Amino acid sequence: MTAKVLLAGTWRDADSVGTFQATNPNTNEKLPAEFPISSWADCDAALDAAAEAAREMRKLPAAKIAEFLDLYADKIDAAKEPLVEAAHAETGLAKSPRLADGELPRTSGQLRSAAESCRSGDWALATIDTAAGIRSCYEPLGPVCVFGPNNFPFAFGSVSGGDFAAAIAAGNPVIGKANSSHPETTRLFAELALEAAKETGMPAAIVQLIYRTGHADGERLVADPRVGATGYTGSRSAGLKLKAAADAAGKPIYLELSSVNPVVLLPGALAARGDEIVDEFCGSALMGSGQFCTNPGVVLAIAGEGTDKFIATVKERFAGSPAGTLLSPAVAGSLKQSIETLCGFGAELLVGGGEVEAGRCALANTLMTATGKQFLADPEGFQTEAFGNASLVVVAEDLAELCNVIASLEGNLTGCVYSDPAGSDDASYDQVAFELTPKVGRMLNDKMPTGVAVSAAMNHGGPYPATGHPGFTAVGIPGSLLRFAKLTSFDNVRAERLPALLGDKNPTGQTPRRIDGAWTTADL
Amino acid sequence: MTAKVLLAGTWRDADSVGTFQATNPNTNEKLPAEFPISSWADCDAALDAAAEAAREMRKLPAAKIAEFLDLYADKIDAAKEPLVEAAHAETGLAKSPRLADGELPRTSGQLRSAAESCRSGDWALATIDTAAGIRSCYEPLGPVCVFGPNNFPFAFGSVSGGDFAAAIAAGNPVIGKANSSHPETTRLFAELALEAAKETGMPAAIVQLIYRTGHADGERLVADPRVGATGYTGSRSAGLKLKAAADAAGKPIYLELSSVNPVVLLPGALAARGDEIVDEFCGSALMGSGQFCTNPGVVLAIAGEGTDKFIATVKERFAGSPAGTLLSPAVAGSLKQSIETLCGFGAELLVGGGEVEAGRCALANTLMTATGKQFLADPEGFQTEAFGNASLVVVAEDLAELCNVIASLEGNLTGCVYSDPAGSDDASYDQVAFELTPKVGRMLNDKMPTGVAVSAAMNHGGPYPATGHPGFTAVGIPGSLLRFAKLTSFDNVRAERLPALLGDKNPTGQTPRRIDGAWTTADL
Repeated sequence: MTAKVLLAGTWRDADSVGTFQATNPNTNEKLPAEFPISSWADCDAALDAAAEAAREMRKLPAAKIAEFLDLYADKIDAAKEPLVEAAHAETGLAKSPRLADGELPRTSGQLRSAAESCRSGDWALATIDTAAGIRSCYEPLGPVCVFGPNNFPFAFGSVSGGDFAAAIAAGNPVIGKANSSHPETTRLFAELALEAAKETGMPAAIVQLIYRTGHADGERLVADPRVGATGYTGSRSAGLKLKAAADAAGKPIYLELSSVNPVVLLPGALAARGDEIVDEFCGSALMGSGQFCTNPGVVLAIAGEGTDKFIATVKERFAGSPAGTLLSPAVAGSLKQSIETLCGFGAELLVGGGEVEAGRCALANTLMTATGKQFLADPEGFQTEAFGNASLVVVAEDLAELCNVIASLEGNLTGCVYSDPAGSDDASYDQVAFELTPKVGRMLNDKMPTGVAVSAAMNHGGPYPATGHPGFTAVGIPGSLLRFAKLTSFDNVRAERLPALLGDKNPTGQTPRRIDGAWTTADL
Repeated sequence: MTAKVLLAGTWRDADSVGTFQATNPNTNEKLPAEFPISSWADCDAALDAAAEAAREMRKLPAAKIAEFLDLYADKIDAAKEPLVEAAHAETGLAKSPRLADGELPRTSGQLRSAAESCRSGDWALATIDTAAGIRSCYEPLGPVCVFGPNNFPFAFGSVSGGDFAAAIAAGNPVIGKANSSHPETTRLFAELALEAAKETGMPAAIVQLIYRTGHADGERLVADPRVGATGYTGSRSAGLKLKAAADAAGKPIYLELSSVNPVVLLPGALAARGDEIVDEFCGSALMGSGQFCTNPGVVLAIAGEGTDKFIATVKERFAGSPAGTLLSPAVAGSLKQSIETLCGFGAELLVGGGEVEAGRCALANTLMTATGKQFLADPEGFQTEAFGNASLVVVAEDLAELCNVIASLEGNLTGCVYSDPAGSDDASYDQVAFELTPKVGRMLNDKMPTGVAVSAAMNHGGPYPATGHPGFTAVGIPGSLLRFAKLTSFDNVRAERLPALLGDKNPTGQTPRRIDGAWTTADL
């Protein structure tokens, strides 16, 4: 039996143009459940219902929407076991600690943070200019389409993750497009969300779910007049097609596309604590089989003894570590192809590159090297993202060449620089950081990029092509809510007609508002 | 002799593919000065110099950049006479009060506000999470291209206006593309800016100026890898071509395109103070010959005595008021065409529509009407912007039809609702505002939309196609600076390497920073 889609508060048969099944990457076998590929009719129905839900949500107090998010978080915590089982079967990710103890609490915690921000309105940057009689804040934008990625079935899931939490907390309904590699996991989340919505009096279509559409229907969806905005995390090629469609219609689309997350290892750091850096790098590079947006895909170093030793030790460590299971046959295929592409450009394969034992989705841990000269001869080619357990070390002949390599980088989510704790690298650091910082959304020191804290100061974003706009973050509350909001000024609007956030009285007693230039929680 | 372009700190001969002259709209005669149409070589040179200037600016303390803005503002005030003369000749706008007493002080005031925000860093939303060890703020994005509009030669000028002030205050150099209708005015500003830059030790290419390029070169410019972002104010068709080019390259572009700025007149308002509303409307609609982005182009009302009287009185008033001079022959031609388009869709021409006396750019004040039914039969057609002294009154048969008309509107910069001060319209207001608010960037009560205060709470923005993104404002400081900035997190970055805004010590003693969730000006 084919799974039902969730449209307008009802689980119903899809208007289907085909079906698909997910694959268990630990066995390479198709999972039994069948999921529908929706036609435009399903998208159209979702859009109508979402547009109506958006209208209803605009009438709800923020505290009511926050209740929904909190209750949904509780339901997720309570349903840990079936969620973990489903996600493990569909993604091969370890049940524990990864799914049960890492991603699941992160997911419910994120929803609770979003609830808190929704309740307080701190995200909306309420601003009051008493002299001019103008008040402004961010307001809901309308239905948000969320396309979740394959690598975080919970925390970035289309009806459970960061985009979902941010869109709802900003007051918008969500149309979730499940990632095709974990449809059953997504279905379970949608069931919980629907229950929570009903129990807290939300409009039925606050959350809807379709599993897959044709490409043309996806492009039509993000450009539809009924849509407010779209959040997309996934492959660059699919993302750019959606971006083109949304851009042409003037619809905001927030993308997280690809990133090689350069890690610069300066000589003093390697000399002072090369072994620790190898540990940190291998841990970060192979964790989750390297399937993180912030995986350190490219290491940049200067030729020398420390670098030679780093490469030799990492090579051994990669060779001696078991190859993790990849998320899907598609990921395994794409990783193999990327490695071939990089080697085609002249990268030297030090270890890995091929299949390990049959019967599961996996590729041997792969380490490649290239010289700075090679990189500079084709920066685009050498920045091919190898999503999975593969890394490239680029060895520059000196600091100047290293800086040239950095200057030739595209936009990235993160950039790290390891330098001598005693200060011997400080002059080099200044040059490196000067080139690297403009290229990245998050600059790290002496620390690998994996691990994206849900912090108000987090930027999980970065210049194109890491994302579609350098001013927004996909992780971190309250910042991530601003993606799904419109700025609205109220000019000379009568007091009783102002949104609660902009009234003379502070709506919660503790909402920060910028009144005549100063942030305060006081009443006017 | 052909004017020189300003590239890399030097006025030099353009690599020119042709020349053009501006027209004096008061005489319809070409002004003598010749200006070059730059080839790609000029754009390329500007981009190289701007990229280098951007690097230098990143090393400057904010207070130094603020000095430049302040000194430039002083020079503008001191050069009032030649600026007003040039702008009057090129645009036909009145020397006084418009240019000398309105736009000029607004322009220098705006630069001083930007200087203040630059100095304090209040715009950068500095955020510190001590527990996570992460700090974030907005930082410069890189060279900003500014395409200024025809209607505000000072306050939105490409090297003097709001986009310029915001881009510089956020730490970016500007490549100005003059509006072809007032090149000499823009040249004078660039001279003053260059002087101020030299006197305050700015990089020479902090401001550059070209006058015109071919379309293809303009598209190439906004998509160039050396560019950070673009600000554009002008026609929808040209803007959308630039948008497509910038979008495809992943470059932010902020557009202000077109807006009919609906004004809803509810029956109680017309009954209570119909005469005042006629005064306010005619003042707003005909001010500056209607050549404002926020000109009230469409009035929406419900059939009835008050509406009949409003139309009849406005018709008389339009007929009896002198037709102002339009900015250029192009504006006059386009206005005539828009009126014909609207009449082609079935709008009834009550007054105006044709030329007035020969020898200057002008069209008779024009008033048209249409029914709600007509509007609903072709909402797109009836939303054709008639930029200039022309307005359309749409008469709905009842409140429900009025709300349908509003629901069919595109995004607009502003929306106004006039309602009975005594409250008789309150129930209608709720319905109207519910439909109208999501469509507009600024919602007004009992007030016409012209007059865009430079306020922290201003939103001069709105949903597409009013602008390209509903989350940003082009007017208002500090908000407008965020368009030209990238969000950057610093994760575990050593204390001495943090930007001044993110250090433990508050850099100015009064910069608002969000530390562990609360806004404060205290040190850490």
